Amino acid sequence: MNLTANQPIDNLHANLVSQCLATKQASKVLALSDRQSKDKVLLSMARIIKQNSDRLILANGKDLQNAKKAGLSPAMIDRLTINDATIRQMQDALEYVAGLSDPLEGTFPVNVRPNGIRVSKKRIPLGVILMIYESRPNVTVEAAALAIKSGNGIILRGGKEAFESNQAIAICWHEALEENQFDGATVRVLDSVDRQVTDALLKMDEMIDVVIPRGGEGLIRHVVANSYIPVIKHYKGVCHLFIDESADHEKAINLLLNGKTQRPGVCNALEGVLVHQAIAKDILPKINQALKNKQVTIYGCEKSQAVLNDIEAATEDEFKQEFLDLKISMKVVESIDEAIDFIDQFGSYHTEVIVTENQVNADRFINEVDASVVMVNASSRFSDGGELGLGAEIGISTSKLHAYGPMGLESLTSEKFVVTGEGQIRD
Amino acid sequence: MNLTANQPIDNLHANLVSQCLATKQASKVLALSDRQSKDKVLLSMARIIKQNSDRLILANGKDLQNAKKAGLSPAMIDRLTINDATIRQMQDALEYVAGLSDPLEGTFPVNVRPNGIRVSKKRIPLGVILMIYESRPNVTVEAAALAIKSGNGIILRGGKEAFESNQAIAICWHEALEENQFDGATVRVLDSVDRQVTDALLKMDEMIDVVIPRGGEGLIRHVVANSYIPVIKHYKGVCHLFIDESADHEKAINLLLNGKTQRPGVCNALEGVLVHQAIAKDILPKINQALKNKQVTIYGCEKSQAVLNDIEAATEDEFKQEFLDLKISMKVVESIDEAIDFIDQFGSYHTEVIVTENQVNADRFINEVDASVVMVNASSRFSDGGELGLGAEIGISTSKLHAYGPMGLESLTSEKFVVTGEGQIRD
Repeated sequence: MNLTANQPIDNLHANLVSQCLATKQASKVLALSDRQSKDKVLLSMARIIKQNSDRLILANGKDLQNAKKAGLSPAMIDRLTINDATIRQMQDALEYVAGLSDPLEGTFPVNVRPNGIRVSKKRIPLGVILMIYESRPNVTVEAAALAIKSGNGIILRGGKEAFESNQAIAICWHEALEENQFDGATVRVLDSVDRQVTDALLKMDEMIDVVIPRGGEGLIRHVVANSYIPVIKHYKGVCHLFIDESADHEKAINLLLNGKTQRPGVCNALEGVLVHQAIAKDILPKINQALKNKQVTIYGCEKSQAVLNDIEAATEDEFKQEFLDLKISMKVVESIDEAIDFIDQFGSYHTEVIVTENQVNADRFINEVDASVVMVNASSRFSDGGELGLGAEIGISTSKLHAYGPMGLESLTSEKFVVTGEGQIRD
Repeated sequence: MNLTANQPIDNLHANLVSQCLATKQASKVLALSDRQSKDKVLLSMARIIKQNSDRLILANGKDLQNAKKAGLSPAMIDRLTINDATIRQMQDALEYVAGLSDPLEGTFPVNVRPNGIRVSKKRIPLGVILMIYESRPNVTVEAAALAIKSGNGIILRGGKEAFESNQAIAICWHEALEENQFDGATVRVLDSVDRQVTDALLKMDEMIDVVIPRGGEGLIRHVVANSYIPVIKHYKGVCHLFIDESADHEKAINLLLNGKTQRPGVCNALEGVLVHQAIAKDILPKINQALKNKQVTIYGCEKSQAVLNDIEAATEDEFKQEFLDLKISMKVVESIDEAIDFIDQFGSYHTEVIVTENQVNADRFINEVDASVVMVNASSRFSDGGELGLGAEIGISTSKLHAYGPMGLESLTSEKFVVTGEGQIRD
């Protein structure tokens, strides 16, 4: 594309349109390819990134240098880094996806209508996916692998801090596609991280079928507000654990610790604990001690503060917050009804858990809580494509259209109707 | 709401928010209701609209008077009219939907993971649907019936020409809901047809789960460009019939006549016919005669004009057009490849038909044509929820997210993950 700051907007737009068209055309060839041809691309890519590991690490070095100058946090630098271990992980991911079954395979039942026409369906790829994501070069490998496996073209717009790394990975994708007789445009890594480019793409609903934005809530809201293309997204994960009156205390505390501390920086970590008031006096001190041992700060409601005098006070701000840190909000509730109402008010449609030995309450929680994943006596950390058995995860949706919750390969497909007859006409 | 022209925008907004919130709350009660309770509302409504037929016809009379003053077309006035026959049709629709099975019933398989957690799913309503549609009062009955049956709240924004009729129907819905102990807010018929109101609603993605716009392409594009809420839509239906070299000529002509003339004003009517050049000389005169007998004007490519000297010339404009009238474009193609490319260029992802006796070509057409409904030797007019066996149709989607093609009750639902365990945590 060779964008320059002074390039007129019309040229920019024409360039983008021709790039998107090429990816759309390429996606049509991929859509009709069999599993073996697609898997070969993934396995070629696994070999090629290994062969080019020096180049990848060199390009990544430039990104890392800039990132350090720009003062990125250690966590961000960690996610940005490519080294021999991360290259091995990318290879593993490619081989894993190649080993998954093809989501386009399989057949649908045939419904013979009274007039004799036979109505069935056929699974098809979505077409072209636009993925907007953080500065994580592994996503440039993994998201494209899932797209190819499901027969979709993909346009990748990674974070600007990973620019050089992503361009180097793009060259590898090109090679992997072309050595298997696919058009390199099937996987398009944008060579501009200009916002204007992203915003222009968001209007191209004739050529792009779905946008999957990942990253900060601000970015995702911007995409939702500006896109003509359907968006699959989740803003944040404010997940709760509700410890019911009948809960097994040991189970409850284990689930709480696992949900909060096993990996606090991810979206399926717990951000709030709700405790039934009938057991508050008994269990809260145990919870307090367990969380203290793990350096977790508690922000409690007034009732929890009445039992625990060494915790912080919670305001509405804490109840809303996705801490992604060793912090948790705490609320003592009168009943399961209050727990459900609280989740209704402060939840994020991501993952909600009840700890209970009471089947009636378990069923009520499952039925009444509006979240993409509802759980009984299991850790919120299982709310993940791999853990739920989807094979691989392309993202999580917290709105109910198309997909709700963790999305596997099938979420990158759709279904068309197939009707066959012998000349039947409508009266 | 009692909107006045001078009402400040903040008040308008606060009013809308409180209305949407009430509908969202009401939808949660409906979501948890059993089939019988929902069906009772529909049957009450069938009785109530009959009892109130005088009031409905009177209100409709005001709309008709305005419509005639405004010079609406006879077709539009026809769709706007409420009389004893249309009330009977609305009653039939309500009784029919009550008789359909509940899309929320049924269970999903359980997948036991290696760690023992049991992963399943549960079907749930989408929540609140915003329907924006033409001046057709029957939709105010039928769309709400489908929403209730699938457990969804609905906000109805009908065409301004049907304002009085829709308000009268709203009163009936209120009565039907309340006599069955549901909140009248479950079905909200907007009492303003101000564009500002619609545009404000399109930003309320916290309270509305999906927008289904119907009507002109301009309106639908406006909704897509301005909505923060996922949109299910189709712009238009430019459906083609491709008559392959091996086609049975009689079948082909019957399918063409049925697709074009049985009801020319609907989206699944044919707008173009493609003919393989090997049979053009033989079949085109027969097609010409058959279409002439039905007063259909043909706009043909150069090759078709070379065979038929009494047809109009087609430009790109005709190939793109949804005539919704006794007009059709005609193109002679060299091969099935050219037919598929032409459909790729001018189709609308709605319905595409091949007439062929060659299984290889049938399969190629099914696989390679990107349309929500692909057909072999059957009339495009079967591309309809009822005809395809979906029970009832809420709309048609020509984008691949969530639903592709005619949508039945199940398209108004989603699935959540349900995970149960015995305290399992993640390592």
